[in-house]
Amino acid sequence: MQQIIVQKYGGSSIKDTTRIKNTANRIKSYQNQGYQVVVVVSAMGKTTDTLLSLAKEISTTPSKRELDVLLSTGEQISIALLSMALNEIEIDTISLTGSQCGIKTNSVHSNARIENIDSERILTELNKNVVIVAGFQGINEKGDITTLGRGGSDTSAVALAAALKAEKCEIYTDVDGIYSADPRIIPNAKKLDTISYDEMLEMAKLGAQVLHPRSVELAKNYQVKLEVKSSLNNNPGTKIIGEIDMEKIQIRGITSENSIARISITRVPDKPGIAYKLFKTLSDNSVSIDMILQNLTHENVNDISFTTPVEELNKVSPIVKDFAKNIGAEDVIIKDNVSKISLIGTGILGHGEIASMFFETLSDLKINIEMISTSETKISCIIDKSHSLIATKKLHEIFFES
Amino acid sequence: MQQIIVQKYGGSSIKDTTRIKNTANRIKSYQNQGYQVVVVVSAMGKTTDTLLSLAKEISTTPSKRELDVLLSTGEQISIALLSMALNEIEIDTISLTGSQCGIKTNSVHSNARIENIDSERILTELNKNVVIVAGFQGINEKGDITTLGRGGSDTSAVALAAALKAEKCEIYTDVDGIYSADPRIIPNAKKLDTISYDEMLEMAKLGAQVLHPRSVELAKNYQVKLEVKSSLNNNPGTKIIGEIDMEKIQIRGITSENSIARISITRVPDKPGIAYKLFKTLSDNSVSIDMILQNLTHENVNDISFTTPVEELNKVSPIVKDFAKNIGAEDVIIKDNVSKISLIGTGILGHGEIASMFFETLSDLKINIEMISTSETKISCIIDKSHSLIATKKLHEIFFES
Repeated sequence: MQQIIVQKYGGSSIKDTTRIKNTANRIKSYQNQGYQVVVVVSAMGKTTDTLLSLAKEISTTPSKRELDVLLSTGEQISIALLSMALNEIEIDTISLTGSQCGIKTNSVHSNARIENIDSERILTELNKNVVIVAGFQGINEKGDITTLGRGGSDTSAVALAAALKAEKCEIYTDVDGIYSADPRIIPNAKKLDTISYDEMLEMAKLGAQVLHPRSVELAKNYQVKLEVKSSLNNNPGTKIIGEIDMEKIQIRGITSENSIARISITRVPDKPGIAYKLFKTLSDNSVSIDMILQNLTHENVNDISFTTPVEELNKVSPIVKDFAKNIGAEDVIIKDNVSKISLIGTGILGHGEIASMFFETLSDLKINIEMISTSETKISCIIDKSHSLIATKKLHEIFFES
Repeated sequence: MQQIIVQKYGGSSIKDTTRIKNTANRIKSYQNQGYQVVVVVSAMGKTTDTLLSLAKEISTTPSKRELDVLLSTGEQISIALLSMALNEIEIDTISLTGSQCGIKTNSVHSNARIENIDSERILTELNKNVVIVAGFQGINEKGDITTLGRGGSDTSAVALAAALKAEKCEIYTDVDGIYSADPRIIPNAKKLDTISYDEMLEMAKLGAQVLHPRSVELAKNYQVKLEVKSSLNNNPGTKIIGEIDMEKIQIRGITSENSIARISITRVPDKPGIAYKLFKTLSDNSVSIDMILQNLTHENVNDISFTTPVEELNKVSPIVKDFAKNIGAEDVIIKDNVSKISLIGTGILGHGEIASMFFETLSDLKINIEMISTSETKISCIIDKSHSLIATKKLHEIFFES
């Protein structure tokens, strides 16, 4: 039996008809290697933006169901054109929408979750065709079109690779792979040959925009072999793998996120359940919370701080102010110009010297650390946004260039 | 029970977001009148052309299946945007693709025929929503997307009106209705208040571009009440109706078609079955044939002439030349600059004076009539293309302006 490979091409790999033809040639070369090829595509270049701006001309709050009907056309255009380009070079193809290839999701329009994939049609078609699937989309049980939210096409590709038990899943983009830092701001950033799922998950969550955390999580859960590669050359990419030597320190990368706000409620009376109530209220209002810090500053009173994306501030501020008033806290301090700088790797917490080098570097730069959070695979600090670039550069120099 | 109305809006009624909003207001006014409204839409303005030119950049002969996947996105964009515009003015809506609203077709991609409509979902949704349907598209039994070819959205609308037993089907366009001649070339052309299915069928076949013959035929077969109206004003349109007083002469309009070629095979040996063989050969090659004329010019030899659209000439010429050679005919004469001028109405053949006035008018203008064909509801003449405009003007003057 031939092995199946799933390849995902993002908007930049098919941004115009020339790129579509190049991508077709790449796919052909894989078919020539004897693979059964499933291709997942995003919308071409700016299509999604164009469609969104049409919607905005009509409504500031368009129905999410209709937005899904609208946006899903972007990928449908891509599958048809890529299919035609493959036919031109004598490859038999069939294009399938999310609905046609059986990607069943829940009904959360604009941010649906894949529930299962009925892979029968794809498997049948693979015997004679390259199968080209519209990423980012599925259908719910009513037969309505849903979309998967940010990074949706990556998720489609990984989910298909899992369902089809593919040999591997390749994510094509316009960079060569995963880097030790964002190459646009750190020219010396180094491409990683391999990275573990957990490390990649941290990198993705902390702002490396190449892969969406959801797809990495899915890949980890189903042990899908992932590789991130460039569609513009034949360089080897970055392999995301399961096995990693936990004893060895692996420092993978530095990330910085700059659209973060810090909210502090000062002098919260120290009664049981107050933090719970706050975060329950926020979660009931679908506010994304990231880092949380609570420290006893005075006798019987706490400061509670947390971070949230800047774009959520309008929603969060009134909720928090209300809450603070109700519980008799002193004040709410909102700072919308902070950055989160993170160091990602395996085993870094177990080795105290990594953390101290990290803090020392910031301290040498006279940068005040406002919050710290750590996990098995990362150290993150909140600092003033104005220091974000210099901190990232210096940390990269210390950990990767010496 | 509320009555159902089906309204179809063409590309010009939704060519930009401003027009879409205007169209939404029109739909709302019908809902306020107590109708359950089903809206069928085409692609916005130039969308189809844009998509086609993308396809042409990739392939000169794109797969028809993939072309259907591509082009059907145009209507899908329209339904989502129109739905959003209706939501903005507090109308509950649901948009449905051809697949979602159960329009089942055969598998002739790019020119599919509707086989049946499973109207269950539409009927359920109509209890609470204006239902907005993507015209021009359906699905075949494999679940693949098909499109209905030219005039496809009109056909979708009429088919839905028939399946839903709608009170009426309104076709909105950028002119006020059906005219006695093309208003762009005959400024005095008169808008018709009513026209019969058969008359409309002739008008449509003979070049009146407002309605496609297929949709008229369907409306006739299912006795769907059709009305053609402008989406730019509130003028009454033209009603296409079943009953017509056959005793009374009703002259409806003059049409001219200018992209016609005449092909003559001269001195065809007069043997049985030769005409049959010729037209069988042409039909096997999917050539559209319109008028056919056979006349015995010499003893035992015929001239056979027929007309075909100019764009088919490349395909037709070699077939006819081969055929002529094989049967020992004298020559093939191809004239690609003829026009067909037609007078349409009911009862015009039964009253000889109409036909003679028609021929007399052309004769007074010293225009040579190259071919004549007649039916219950029309008289058509083939003349030299250079006389088309003057003939149309004069005939309109004689029959409609005096």
